[in-house]
Amino acid sequence: MSFQDKTLSTIDSKIILAERLQQSRQAAQAMASLTTDAKNTALGHLATLLRQEAQTLLQANRHDLDAAYEGNLQESLLQRLKLDESKINTLIEGTEQVIQLPDPSHRVLQRTQLDDGLILEQRSVPLGVIALIFESRPDVMPQVLALMLKSGNAVVFKGGQEATHSNRAMMALVDKLTQLAGLPAGWAQLIEGRKAVTELLNYPQYVDLVIPRGSNALVQHIMANTRIPVLGHADGVCHLYVHTSADIAKALAVVLDAKTHYPSACNALETLLLDAPLAETFLPMLSEAALAAGLTLFGCNQTRQILPHLAPVESWHTEYGELKLSIKLVDTVSEAISHINHYGSHHTDGILASDPSVIDTFLTQVDSANVYANASTRFADGFRYGLGAEIGISTSRTHARGPVGLQGLVTTQYRLTGQYHTVAPYSSGQRAFQHTLL
Amino acid sequence: MSFQDKTLSTIDSKIILAERLQQSRQAAQAMASLTTDAKNTALGHLATLLRQEAQTLLQANRHDLDAAYEGNLQESLLQRLKLDESKINTLIEGTEQVIQLPDPSHRVLQRTQLDDGLILEQRSVPLGVIALIFESRPDVMPQVLALMLKSGNAVVFKGGQEATHSNRAMMALVDKLTQLAGLPAGWAQLIEGRKAVTELLNYPQYVDLVIPRGSNALVQHIMANTRIPVLGHADGVCHLYVHTSADIAKALAVVLDAKTHYPSACNALETLLLDAPLAETFLPMLSEAALAAGLTLFGCNQTRQILPHLAPVESWHTEYGELKLSIKLVDTVSEAISHINHYGSHHTDGILASDPSVIDTFLTQVDSANVYANASTRFADGFRYGLGAEIGISTSRTHARGPVGLQGLVTTQYRLTGQYHTVAPYSSGQRAFQHTLL
Repeated sequence: MSFQDKTLSTIDSKIILAERLQQSRQAAQAMASLTTDAKNTALGHLATLLRQEAQTLLQANRHDLDAAYEGNLQESLLQRLKLDESKINTLIEGTEQVIQLPDPSHRVLQRTQLDDGLILEQRSVPLGVIALIFESRPDVMPQVLALMLKSGNAVVFKGGQEATHSNRAMMALVDKLTQLAGLPAGWAQLIEGRKAVTELLNYPQYVDLVIPRGSNALVQHIMANTRIPVLGHADGVCHLYVHTSADIAKALAVVLDAKTHYPSACNALETLLLDAPLAETFLPMLSEAALAAGLTLFGCNQTRQILPHLAPVESWHTEYGELKLSIKLVDTVSEAISHINHYGSHHTDGILASDPSVIDTFLTQVDSANVYANASTRFADGFRYGLGAEIGISTSRTHARGPVGLQGLVTTQYRLTGQYHTVAPYSSGQRAFQHTLL
Repeated sequence: MSFQDKTLSTIDSKIILAERLQQSRQAAQAMASLTTDAKNTALGHLATLLRQEAQTLLQANRHDLDAAYEGNLQESLLQRLKLDESKINTLIEGTEQVIQLPDPSHRVLQRTQLDDGLILEQRSVPLGVIALIFESRPDVMPQVLALMLKSGNAVVFKGGQEATHSNRAMMALVDKLTQLAGLPAGWAQLIEGRKAVTELLNYPQYVDLVIPRGSNALVQHIMANTRIPVLGHADGVCHLYVHTSADIAKALAVVLDAKTHYPSACNALETLLLDAPLAETFLPMLSEAALAAGLTLFGCNQTRQILPHLAPVESWHTEYGELKLSIKLVDTVSEAISHINHYGSHHTDGILASDPSVIDTFLTQVDSANVYANASTRFADGFRYGLGAEIGISTSRTHARGPVGLQGLVTTQYRLTGQYHTVAPYSSGQRAFQHTLL
């Protein structure tokens, strides 16, 4: 029997889930009051516990790995499932780094004096309850725990069946942390069973944000089945457009970096758009470089007139995620922009050019979270952007867009303090608002 | 035959709607490129057209009013449906004021030097396509047109059947504006028919934000039936909590202002929470003032021991929207906070007190868009907050929370400009990021 066939955990009955999410909501309200010092102290405890409990975590992970071997899990998934001492050390370091990051909540974003003694503040506050739905990687939990602690949110984890033992061991560690640091009961919970996801997505009253970490299929499924805001991206069909004004040799180097540096990343290049006049010189250079890099090229009809050995592109929507690249010749920057806005996934798209007005047109009209001029698409990453941590990359237009750091885990709240002020005198014209920015 | 029974417009076939929304998406991309000057010029044309076409608009509105009289529309709806010269003048003034507001898009929010010649900017950009679903009030269209123009968004209007003639007349004005100002075709569209709403809500790929303006039922229906982010609030069950440390006479004045100044507003008071020790003095004062103000009080059991003539509160979830107020005695600030977080609508809730630590506890733990100390809940308003314009008040946690001005119509985009930078040297450690804030 493979683990996929095991009976679903009994915990995922609807009533129990609702009760647990209510507890998360209550815990979130208590978390919101924690001071930065209290949160940093708790993060210190988390790092210590990860060090102390490393062997317990590794032992639990071995149970999962044994089951995975029996279930013939594919090699790449096994690698993601596996914990080792080096991964745990990275987690400890990561936790210690989060202590150094600024607290994203409790910040006064704007302060306005509406009138004498009547002060309005817009403040950052934690979002509330965040659900993290992930597959395999048990190292996701401690990473995310640290970020939730720092931002003052409650978190509900739903891990994959294949990492059950690892995730439960991590929850045992969380229980110790909760006691040690005096955190509110239920601030971090683990729910199990595939049905639990479907149910969880039906509770916008308890869950404020869903963050999916896993396959495109998982993310697409979640986005299509909930009214809760989702922070993530289903796919990353990223483009580079080489304009006639580009430095061809340098453009080729950027194209190769964007495609071959880490082809399975969401910010890797999938489609190259090339100005037709460049084709005769650029395509043979690319073809030669592709051969050396083990990169398979696919072309539009025009491309295949120059490189006849290429197979045709099957779909401009394809995210290969491996050493394959689609090539399309275009006649104008407008054609390139239209192609990107139509076939892309609004993730990361760039132009390689030296003509400033063409660059400006491209950057203004491409409707993606990240728009680049003369840089590899692979720069789209929270750490490379200097955010200190990355919650995920969002292709949504609202809440957060692009690589998202701790800022994606907070919202705002207006706080007004007066001296028993009433609105009637302002309505009648007896008093006027000052609206002085402080 | 009342207008409600008329056959639905043939325009709302699914295919046609999808095509029109695709046109909105294309128009949005063109709108995003408009300069602030071009947008302000268009706003000037809008003001001029409103002045020139006033009689045409009023004539169309008279058609709607005639139908409404025949259909026995209730008086309050008739008032909202009616346009007159004074309302049109207000619209012209409003449009001219929007010209003076700062452009919320094209702003550089943060600029970071990742490395020599590699500059990252986070910029504000228009959201894209925004759907406005409204009832009755034909003055909503020009108000919203001005805000959409200023922020550079495309807009899809869905008005009520009862304002068909007024809305169509306004669209004829929009067509003139589009020509005069050279705006992209389809940047503002009107869709008709009740089925169109249901269909529109199924197109998250074309519509980036839905703003409902109308009854609680309309807003609730929309929130429950779409994955598109909704900017709005379904209800406003607002609270004031009078703590023992409050100045009782001043507290009473704030309570009366919050409840009686404009009882149908979403930020009007619905439930008063009163510290039990204050009951003997405060309740008789309130009762007397209520009598003078024509205000009907409802009480919890304890309240009714002191004011036996009060009827019991039927539900703590009730938004009266008229001169009625629920009263509940509480024993602690925690009880007040729990009541608000449980029964409130996370809109606007305040404390009246002088003890700073109690005030701080309340402001930190109440989970509402607006949290107040010693001020009337009626201050929760975009104009009173000094936002210059109000798109709506949002009780959502993501995207925008509280009164929302033009900022609610933009999102962000990362723009990276380099000199053919690749990531490989940073991964290998050959180069290091600088991450210098500029």
